[in-house]
Amino acid sequence: MLQHTTQVRVRYAETDQMGVVYHANYVVWMEVGRVEAMRAAGLNYAEMEREGIRVAVLGVELQYKAAARYDDLVDITARVVEVQSRMMRIEYDIHRAADGQLLAQGATKHLFVNLDLKPIRCPEKYYAVFAGAACTNT
Amino acid sequence: MLQHTTQVRVRYAETDQMGVVYHANYVVWMEVGRVEAMRAAGLNYAEMEREGIRVAVLGVELQYKAAARYDDLVDITARVVEVQSRMMRIEYDIHRAADGQLLAQGATKHLFVNLDLKPIRCPEKYYAVFAGAACTNT
Amino acid sequence: MLQHTTQVRVRYAETDQMGVVYHANYVVWMEVGRVEAMRAAGLNYAEMEREGIRVAVLGVELQYKAAARYDDLVDITARVVEVQSRMMRIEYDIHRAADGQLLAQGATKHLFVNLDLKPIRCPEKYYAVFAGAACTNT
Amino acid sequence: MLQHTTQVRVRYAETDQMGVVYHANYVVWMEVGRVEAMRAAGLNYAEMEREGIRVAVLGVELQYKAAARYDDLVDITARVVEVQSRMMRIEYDIHRAADGQLLAQGATKHLFVNLDLKPIRCPEKYYAVFAGAACTNT
Repeated sequence: MLQHTTQVRVRYAETDQMGVVYHANYVVWMEVGRVEAMRAAGLNYAEMEREGIRVAVLGVELQYKAAARYDDLVDITARVVEVQSRMMRIEYDIHRAADGQLLAQGATKHLFVNLDLKPIRCPEKYYAVFAGAACTNT
Repeated sequence: MLQHTTQVRVRYAETDQMGVVYHANYVVWMEVGRVEAMRAAGLNYAEMEREGIRVAVLGVELQYKAAARYDDLVDITARVVEVQSRMMRIEYDIHRAADGQLLAQGATKHLFVNLDLKPIRCPEKYYAVFAGAACTNT
Repeated sequence: MLQHTTQVRVRYAETDQMGVVYHANYVVWMEVGRVEAMRAAGLNYAEMEREGIRVAVLGVELQYKAAARYDDLVDITARVVEVQSRMMRIEYDIHRAADGQLLAQGATKHLFVNLDLKPIRCPEKYYAVFAGAACTNT
Repeated sequence: MLQHTTQVRVRYAETDQMGVVYHANYVVWMEVGRVEAMRAAGLNYAEMEREGIRVAVLGVELQYKAAARYDDLVDITARVVEVQSRMMRIEYDIHRAADGQLLAQGATKHLFVNLDLKPIRCPEKYYAVFAGAACTNT
């Protein structure tokens, strides 16, 4: 199973006037986490795009458990949990590094598309990596 | 039922190199939509916060249906669908104004908290508005 | 002189833990202000880009005078102050609508480029609008 | 002279439909760069804020030289160039790590303020670090 953890440090720009990280920024962190998970599996997403394959986002789910705060080091764990020829599902756990506190859990669902954003089958060389990496593939 | 539609115009800052709106920005738009829905029901969220009540985000769900693009006018419809003494659920439909195309559907779940982010019961004067406005309340 | 004022409402996403608008967001507001100033002069920036002309940003200057806060209505005034065949300078005043308080002043310098981001002469039909609109043009 | 270089990787969220990094994001990177420069000098900005001292932004200047692109590793060099009892000026060079290409140069001017955002003299223990670190101090 492709599972990889990436660390980010909370930027001031990511906080809001509640004194915590603004909730939409976790969606950005999930993107950072999945791109680094792909890189760890040998897939460079920037190159995939240059070859004409995009991994569009079909859906996002997020449950917030505790607040991340400014300057926290945050560990984003991304796992490819399902891959099909046209779709992929990735799950995420986000923890504060200092104390291991779970901050959020989430998932994203993706569609493979071409540069015109039309759905396509994932090319074999990418599929093999994702499918080999995923828990479930059909 | 409290349901209100707010319009935003897509900013260049909100696009990404796919040539469409970056997906996390819909989460920001949902925030804009619910604040304007509250305002339409007579609740000023900025004042609520000054009185010590915050509406924290517990969860977010989003399904993307079509891509919003730069300069599109986008209609964000927010509906309070459930209110409890400590929680609230709001649903959203996001359409392109020009052609009515559904762009995304989503929901957010909220917890009423104090300035220290501790859960509290929603004060009656706010509850009455949300509950009167919601489809379901318990 | 092309001068136009656009209003935005401060989003929660735009605040930071200082309890005010995060300073980089004024750069986004300047973009909103200049695009609306172009629209007011009959130029649709989205169409310009579809025709292959981009207005790239060469430089930004900003002086902050007072803090914008969540839910403030903010007036962004953009003025084209200089247009040349390859460049353009725009100045901005940003005020709080409620009390007229000056929040920030700034300027952006722009280069006309093609889709490959190579510098080009501004096509006559756009130049005429900018130059007719600007205080100074050479 | 306090000078420190921090590296960030360009996030997809930071790109725009020109296919390059949206210009306002360099302002966020400058913030990341100066916070890490402070940390390198033994100052933790999060702790400064907890002690009631904030480093507000009075002004920003930025000149863009070349475009940063998705997935680029970017080196942000921040230098404290002037410190006074109430103000500080920091300069920045931003390069692409892969080829050393200069992407942008800029500066920020800062005011020391308390939690109510009122100007204050920088406490001695912080001043000593900044002033010892700066090229010029008065």
